[in-house]
Amino acid sequence: MNFSAVEHISDSKYCFAINESEMKVRLKVDKNDHFQKIECLYNNSQFFYKTQKSLVMNREFEDDYFAYYSVIFKCDKNDPRSSYVFLLTDEDGKKYFFSEDGLTKDYDFSFSFYNRFGIPYINKIDIKGNKKFEGSLVYQIFPERFNCSDFSKKYINQDWYSLSLKGDNNNRIQNVFLGGDFNGITSKIDYIADLGFDTIYLTPICQSPSNHKYDVIDYFKVDEMFGTTEDFKNLVGRAHQKGIKIILDLVFNHSSKYNEMFLDALKNGKASKYFNYYCIHDEVFKDSQVNYETFGFTDQMPKLNSNNFDEHDYFVGVGKYFIKEYNIDGYRLDVADEVSHTFWRYFKHEMKRVKEDILLIGEHWTDSTSYLSASELDSVMNYPFFVASKYFYIEHKFNAQEYAQKLNSLLLRYDDNTNKVLLNLLDSHDTVRFYNFVKNDKNLYLIAFLTLIVYPGMSMIYYGDEIFMEGGFDPDNRRGMLWNSKEFDSKEHQIFKDILKLKQIDVIRHGDVKIYAKDDLLIIDRFDNQYRVRTIINNSGKDKNIDLNNIILMNNYQNKVLKDKGFVVIKEDI
Amino acid sequence: MNFSAVEHISDSKYCFAINESEMKVRLKVDKNDHFQKIECLYNNSQFFYKTQKSLVMNREFEDDYFAYYSVIFKCDKNDPRSSYVFLLTDEDGKKYFFSEDGLTKDYDFSFSFYNRFGIPYINKIDIKGNKKFEGSLVYQIFPERFNCSDFSKKYINQDWYSLSLKGDNNNRIQNVFLGGDFNGITSKIDYIADLGFDTIYLTPICQSPSNHKYDVIDYFKVDEMFGTTEDFKNLVGRAHQKGIKIILDLVFNHSSKYNEMFLDALKNGKASKYFNYYCIHDEVFKDSQVNYETFGFTDQMPKLNSNNFDEHDYFVGVGKYFIKEYNIDGYRLDVADEVSHTFWRYFKHEMKRVKEDILLIGEHWTDSTSYLSASELDSVMNYPFFVASKYFYIEHKFNAQEYAQKLNSLLLRYDDNTNKVLLNLLDSHDTVRFYNFVKNDKNLYLIAFLTLIVYPGMSMIYYGDEIFMEGGFDPDNRRGMLWNSKEFDSKEHQIFKDILKLKQIDVIRHGDVKIYAKDDLLIIDRFDNQYRVRTIINNSGKDKNIDLNNIILMNNYQNKVLKDKGFVVIKEDI
Repeated sequence: MNFSAVEHISDSKYCFAINESEMKVRLKVDKNDHFQKIECLYNNSQFFYKTQKSLVMNREFEDDYFAYYSVIFKCDKNDPRSSYVFLLTDEDGKKYFFSEDGLTKDYDFSFSFYNRFGIPYINKIDIKGNKKFEGSLVYQIFPERFNCSDFSKKYINQDWYSLSLKGDNNNRIQNVFLGGDFNGITSKIDYIADLGFDTIYLTPICQSPSNHKYDVIDYFKVDEMFGTTEDFKNLVGRAHQKGIKIILDLVFNHSSKYNEMFLDALKNGKASKYFNYYCIHDEVFKDSQVNYETFGFTDQMPKLNSNNFDEHDYFVGVGKYFIKEYNIDGYRLDVADEVSHTFWRYFKHEMKRVKEDILLIGEHWTDSTSYLSASELDSVMNYPFFVASKYFYIEHKFNAQEYAQKLNSLLLRYDDNTNKVLLNLLDSHDTVRFYNFVKNDKNLYLIAFLTLIVYPGMSMIYYGDEIFMEGGFDPDNRRGMLWNSKEFDSKEHQIFKDILKLKQIDVIRHGDVKIYAKDDLLIIDRFDNQYRVRTIINNSGKDKNIDLNNIILMNNYQNKVLKDKGFVVIKEDI
Repeated sequence: MNFSAVEHISDSKYCFAINESEMKVRLKVDKNDHFQKIECLYNNSQFFYKTQKSLVMNREFEDDYFAYYSVIFKCDKNDPRSSYVFLLTDEDGKKYFFSEDGLTKDYDFSFSFYNRFGIPYINKIDIKGNKKFEGSLVYQIFPERFNCSDFSKKYINQDWYSLSLKGDNNNRIQNVFLGGDFNGITSKIDYIADLGFDTIYLTPICQSPSNHKYDVIDYFKVDEMFGTTEDFKNLVGRAHQKGIKIILDLVFNHSSKYNEMFLDALKNGKASKYFNYYCIHDEVFKDSQVNYETFGFTDQMPKLNSNNFDEHDYFVGVGKYFIKEYNIDGYRLDVADEVSHTFWRYFKHEMKRVKEDILLIGEHWTDSTSYLSASELDSVMNYPFFVASKYFYIEHKFNAQEYAQKLNSLLLRYDDNTNKVLLNLLDSHDTVRFYNFVKNDKNLYLIAFLTLIVYPGMSMIYYGDEIFMEGGFDPDNRRGMLWNSKEFDSKEHQIFKDILKLKQIDVIRHGDVKIYAKDDLLIIDRFDNQYRVRTIINNSGKDKNIDLNNIILMNNYQNKVLKDKGFVVIKEDI
């Protein structure tokens, strides 16, 4: 047995409350080690030193080097204190206890108060995840480019279907306007609902001089270009009627330099109450010398100072405003990783106070353990899922086994409840569109999106992905939605829609997951006690005889013979 | 090379800001692997994709299975964004990059935005640790038993020097009163200061019917038995005059059943605004049936509900009150691990808002990663240090090497800044006194305390430890301080005082640490760029020719020849 591989930490991704009376416990071991049995010895903390119950743990995941055994046990709901240690029986029958003392041949339960594992108490308010958003299907809209309700608006300075947005950049304050607006979105709510989406994520809508509106002038006002307060209320109301939740994009890392707060700090220096809302290493702001910190190295977006308690209260006020005024369901938080942890802890507390089931998603690009393990945010944008998928589908840097291992390893970064609300994606307003990578191989594109849909968590589609829109780096990835596209009538669009519909299946939203490779095939099983949906993907290049008509998207709950090629999704009884 | 052992996570105990412009980065590898070199390739995040600087990492720690390489690098203070990956050269000269993609032969820096490690931005407010308390020497006082200013008080019901406190237990509400009080403590501030203590930790002082006062009746009132508001202000003032900080013990997990809030909930049921401040799984509280959750399974201490935002505000009010009214320096938080994480995140934000350098210490007994990695609290009581020391000094379950490995492994649970404010201890009001374990071997006792003092972090002494007081399980460990003890004149008490004085040495408070074994000797080095203090301990039983007079506590900054037996502390130039 590889002793050094055995790992567990209490109250972590290795041990978390699923609900008020159930805990999941996970043990990491070397994947090449074989065990006759791994048991979790547990009990209510009151009794643990005297008596223990035993549950055999199951091998749940494997990544590059490790296997993860897990088990769920019940706590007393009226006294949810639990303690546990592990008992490992190796292939030769030798037994080892594993506690905070490490692997030992003996274990003194009477001394266990000092070295047992445990959850001291399950507090409901600390349970991670979000039932309302679990496994949601999210449509990302860049409002200026999704749909225009009135092309006569004076500020419009480029044709909607102009595909060349190059030059749309003035010190990052993009100033090409096509005219997308709230009423445009509202008129497409049915379109979005019909595709099966239950959530819309809107990039920023507060008043701002740019088309992207990440440089905010007034945090308490929706942008006039997009419409009136009433128009926005109408949008949210219509979405809610159709069962669609709205996620807004809030930008607390920086503001526009035309924000009144910055202008006041610029004018009044240290006499301004907003002086310390920004980051300056000098006595006064010198506009001409840009002696203040900025976002993206543009003087147009001075960086806000999240080390300031008054500033915290201001932005908590912004968060509360959109909940109270517009009944917003969730926030995507821009550049969340540059804003202080201290702010996010406070922000989350204050948002949950006014809306218990609000979802907070950080813009993060890499491992976000520090934000998610501490529950400072509920979720992050899952770019690492995109990276792994690019390595597998586009670059062939991963074979099926390596892709499976990587996906498992991503699932093991966080607890299960958090995984179910991660915002998985293949592209966004900040990346090259995934369609640009596949070089017109629509099948490959569809299979990658199929993976996105059946993988645990929320699945985000960037507007236009469903009609195979192209788009390079920003601003090219923000073209006007091609409402005149012929793709709406294509077979591939129909298949895309069928793929989206998979997200209606309960086990794909909420079920457990097992991802593995069998020879060249990638297999993703989603299951609960009743059903399993198995997705089989062949990206090997061998026997790659793909006929999209052979993709069995739903199997009417009947078993079918699997083929070792093509792309199959089967739902069956267990 | 053991690939599976290599580990690093951004923004964690493996990577943390030491101050506003320096980051420490640590890589875990197999301790049996040898490397020609391990480098950290880093740069400001703006430039990292193009150019990188390189720093060679040093082998800093070893525990049971792993070695930890580390390095400190500087960030641009005006743009503290840093990115990095590692470059490992194995003993055969083969090179591997290590990023969020794992170990790879190549690394594409142009794609690094997606898989590099980094700290996105160093926010000052997030930096862990506490300069004011770093390496403090803490004297723990149980006020009812430390010193009495007036033996004529009517509530006193047992003689101060009565050593038998058995039977002092009425449903956990201990009701034997010896008369210790605020004025008694105040009159001993000089005594405490002369011993070298810079911090006093008082167990609870709010109004309560018991002698321990962990069952609070009024959170906004100091207990009348201990004295008046003025007496307490006087105590704090006198301590502050002598440079001694005061830490209070706050109890938010449960209250007394005679607390007005509980009485109101009991009387008015759901109509009471305090009904949801407690934990009940019923419509009304039934006092006779104890249908509410409790602490320690006594109906006398109903459990508070930290899943309630109003309750959060109430206890934030308590925390602010003692800072504003009495200028308290820190809080020790009782049963912190059963109170919600959500509450502590809010509590810490609100305490730092009113007192930037307040120290928050949780009562935790085991690995406290979930509280400390997320900086929900600044510190915890370090009982695992006691456990390791008991295994080494008392039970001989550990030899010197195993003890060194365990101490290193405890240091590697948290970041360095946090380690420097952990509340290390060998005993407390909740444990058997350490003196009871040594079976009158005062030398062994002194050496264990020497270890406590030179180990990184705060060192806590429980009142009376300095005069070798005995004490079994609660309440026996809460005897009246033996002011008439002959030990005050003993050679061993003098040595205890000399050991305490070691904590005045700058590198013992703030320096780096290296703990290792050489044959049977345990060696603890504390050092900075200028000095090293080396402590050598022989607990092997071999050559154990201990003459306490040979213990060289301070070596007047001169080198001395070390002997391979006895117990030596040497301070020397580097």
